[in-house]
Amino acid sequence: MGVTSTSGWIDELRRLLPDPRRVSTSHAVLENHSHDFSYHAPRLPSAVVFPETTEEVSAILRFANEHGIPVVPFGAGSSLEGHVVPVKGGISLDLTRMNEIVEVRPDDFVVRVQAGVPRSRLNQRLARDGLFFPVDPGADATIGGMIATNASGTSAVRYGAMRHQVLGLEVVLADGTIIRTGSLAVKSSAGYNLTGLFVGSEGTLGVITEATLRVYPLPEYVVAARATFPSVDAAARVAVGLIRAGVPVARVELVDDATVQAVNSYKGTNYPERPTLFLEFSGPEAAVRADVDFARDLAATEDGLGFEFESDEKARERLWEARHHAALAIAAASPGKKMMITDVCVPISHLPEAIRHARRTAEEHGIQAAIFGHVGDGNYHAVFMVDPDDPEDVARAERVNAAIVQHALARGGTCTGEHGVGMGKKKYLNDEHGQALAVMRAIKKTLDPRNVLNPGKIF
Amino acid sequence: MGVTSTSGWIDELRRLLPDPRRVSTSHAVLENHSHDFSYHAPRLPSAVVFPETTEEVSAILRFANEHGIPVVPFGAGSSLEGHVVPVKGGISLDLTRMNEIVEVRPDDFVVRVQAGVPRSRLNQRLARDGLFFPVDPGADATIGGMIATNASGTSAVRYGAMRHQVLGLEVVLADGTIIRTGSLAVKSSAGYNLTGLFVGSEGTLGVITEATLRVYPLPEYVVAARATFPSVDAAARVAVGLIRAGVPVARVELVDDATVQAVNSYKGTNYPERPTLFLEFSGPEAAVRADVDFARDLAATEDGLGFEFESDEKARERLWEARHHAALAIAAASPGKKMMITDVCVPISHLPEAIRHARRTAEEHGIQAAIFGHVGDGNYHAVFMVDPDDPEDVARAERVNAAIVQHALARGGTCTGEHGVGMGKKKYLNDEHGQALAVMRAIKKTLDPRNVLNPGKIF
Ligand SMILES: Cc1cc2nc3c(=O)[nH]c(=O)nc-3n(C[C@H](O)[C@H](O)[C@H](O)COP(=O)(O)OP(=O)(O)OC[C@H]3O[C@@H](n4cnc5c(N)ncnc54)[C@H](O)[C@@H]3O)c2cc1C
Ligand SMILES: Cc1cc2nc3c(=O)[nH]c(=O)nc-3n(C[C@H](O)[C@H](O)[C@H](O)COP(=O)(O)OP(=O)(O)OC[C@H]3O[C@@H](n4cnc5c(N)ncnc54)[C@H](O)[C@@H]3O)c2cc1C
Repeated sequence: MGVTSTSGWIDELRRLLPDPRRVSTSHAVLENHSHDFSYHAPRLPSAVVFPETTEEVSAILRFANEHGIPVVPFGAGSSLEGHVVPVKGGISLDLTRMNEIVEVRPDDFVVRVQAGVPRSRLNQRLARDGLFFPVDPGADATIGGMIATNASGTSAVRYGAMRHQVLGLEVVLADGTIIRTGSLAVKSSAGYNLTGLFVGSEGTLGVITEATLRVYPLPEYVVAARATFPSVDAAARVAVGLIRAGVPVARVELVDDATVQAVNSYKGTNYPERPTLFLEFSGPEAAVRADVDFARDLAATEDGLGFEFESDEKARERLWEARHHAALAIAAASPGKKMMITDVCVPISHLPEAIRHARRTAEEHGIQAAIFGHVGDGNYHAVFMVDPDDPEDVARAERVNAAIVQHALARGGTCTGEHGVGMGKKKYLNDEHGQALAVMRAIKKTLDPRNVLNPGKIF
Repeated sequence: MGVTSTSGWIDELRRLLPDPRRVSTSHAVLENHSHDFSYHAPRLPSAVVFPETTEEVSAILRFANEHGIPVVPFGAGSSLEGHVVPVKGGISLDLTRMNEIVEVRPDDFVVRVQAGVPRSRLNQRLARDGLFFPVDPGADATIGGMIATNASGTSAVRYGAMRHQVLGLEVVLADGTIIRTGSLAVKSSAGYNLTGLFVGSEGTLGVITEATLRVYPLPEYVVAARATFPSVDAAARVAVGLIRAGVPVARVELVDDATVQAVNSYKGTNYPERPTLFLEFSGPEAAVRADVDFARDLAATEDGLGFEFESDEKARERLWEARHHAALAIAAASPGKKMMITDVCVPISHLPEAIRHARRTAEEHGIQAAIFGHVGDGNYHAVFMVDPDDPEDVARAERVNAAIVQHALARGGTCTGEHGVGMGKKKYLNDEHGQALAVMRAIKKTLDPRNVLNPGKIF
């Protein structure tokens, strides 16, 4: 694994940090940093380094850049396309000790955090000021990792993805230079949008050490709802109808009938095995009540088979249970297997057709899949379990994955709406971007000429 | 002006286009393309070229790049910092003949347009499908120019700036390469955000020929309101209070008392000479009514001196008149002078103090100013009229401008929230960005190594 052959530079690296134990070569630690949550093949780094300050990150990068040692930034390791796997060995740079909430500015709706802060902890802190941070990937990711993947989730339909929340960054470049992008202002036209360039760059252009984020008032009143429909198309029409009516819907998720079936057999529940919309409305109480009435009436026009809603927090959670358990239900059915998950995003009118195509393709290949989506964004996931040690099993799943991606690209969509490229989606970028991919490469080369930052990812 | 010395390449350029008249050297046309709407010194280009296709833009750029001839993209010329002034001569590339609305996709809330489409015409077309494009700079700018400056306006508080609307672009690079960025999907994590890099690049990285934009349903019901307050602070607290309560306010503009005074003497009106909030609420009728009630009650808690509202379109316009005439009132008071306009954006809690500081600074320098702002974003403008031929007059206004910018930067703000850098804000970028400015320069050099695209701007 290169640990012995590289012991020279590891010793040198230890001398760069005040505490040599913050450069670890313990097998358990290396193993922890060798994989993500998906089916992608693991590989151990030579060392895991735990910086505590931006200056330490700078010193580490300067050193790595001089010696041509790969550096893979690591947050919670919850990404899904092999992003954090150190495919060329080298350093896994674990940012979780940089987890300070630097400054909460409630009157500006702005917060400054270090990159290693987990989103759950940020939200705990913000709640004290009546605020919250809306971006909610399923895992308890770090803010740095969420920025690096341009993560989003169920609330993007109302608040947008990470890209829309990040006002500024502190970034350490490959050669150790520390820069600050953006400002505390909510908008700016002062030169190139470097902030936006680093969002979604997957650790290949710089290491994010601090971020300035927009935060939002906790809504006064929240209602969750669940509605079932005769078809995926009818459900999607209601979702789009709400948007068309200008209802500021906070969440709108679609789960297909086969997935509800899987949840029922996993949980022993008896949810109607129908395409189901999971909704959330939030805001001032009177406005929310008006929105819920409107949604219920709209569902009725599409032969809605049931419309339930709740405002109490516990009851809201119960109402959404089948959505939360969608992926788990599939995982539980295949113990020991690993997750492969598609993430295409299509123009929203194409979503029902795309979901039906995905379901059909999976069935044709004899693959059990959970299919659910952020229907307001045209983004959905098909989750299948694969045995990484069975090449046939993986190849079959890859074929379904590829068919789903090609279907989306042919309709003007993207191969990944929120998870990012990592290793898994590299093969689709040429089809998706054509000549623009060369521009991305040129920017990579300009900012990281020695290709030390997360090599082997995106390109 | 270089026209005669460059007649050789102008003849060659004429041969590149099917109709030689689309390369103009008529004085009237050159003059038209020598200036913007501001006090910045004009300069004539050597020729104005009117491409009609992306391929023509590509051929022109390839030619210009080979010969090292500057190219300045030109939309409506409504920018305010000398952006379109061809300070190094060369070609003014006028995109207004590329004004096709390529595709309206009402079910996807997406439209594809050529860069030269004026926003008014886009909105006329979208209305047929019950849609609209929200970004509304005061002028009838082109979509290409609005993208290139990352424009915004009164509706950014609800919908965001251009940056949030652009899903994809067709761009011609300096060497003539045509690329497509983004997709028709509303979100993506597929590699670097090139779309976001070109938004706000002011014609210095590439020529935008086509854009894919998000569009929104025309609201069912709209209410405009006007509320007066004893102080700028009280007015701002109400604006922030609405945001804090989760009211999806569509517009919220603040005009200071001295500006209302100027409007009264210009129009012969008798609006209360008090800090005034101009508001707009939109959405489903029941929700809007609830929002308006909430706003009126909130205004009362801040000793609001009056709260009027209207839903009829004509009445709404009348209610907002004093806001629309704010800049005009100042301009009318100084016939023959040109406009200088600040555009700082600060963390929103600092807005009242920033406005008071701007008013005080202008008064100390004996300058009459209109001061009004997008209070929900922390972005405001101070407009003064200057005589470009009177160096003392310009210098005095520049001192006020600089003081306003320094005040904003010291509070974590930006020198320009929506107008962009052009020539006028170049001098502030080092203070604002520090080392990050070198990264911007490196990107410029990578994409435009011969510095032919709008040279002398931003940097
Ligand atoms: C059960 C489950 C559900 C999920 N649901 C969603 C969902 O709904 N939406 C969604 O968007 N995602 C979802 N994800 C994916 C995942 O949570 C995101 O990709 C997450 O944003 C990654 O954050 P992280 O801290 O885990 O980063 P990591 O996985 O550690 O790293 C991700 C990438 O970012 C880079 N990186 C990390 N930190 C930094 C830094 N400080 N500077 C520079 N680069 C850095 C890494 O090098 C790597 O390339 C889900 C994952 C799981 C396991
Ligand atoms: C009265 C008035 C009020 C205004 N109010 C606002 C406001 O509230 N908010 C706001 O944001 N702005 C405002 N503006 C500024 C102005 O409308 C914007 O800057 C506008 O976005 C520029 O668009 P344009 O078509 O006029 O572009 P131009 O002025 O022609 O060009 C602007 C810049 O973009 C580049 N460019 C133009 N087209 C392209 C293209 N196709 N490809 C690449 N580069 C290109 C040019 O080279 C130049 O650098 C106002 C202006 C006026 C006169």
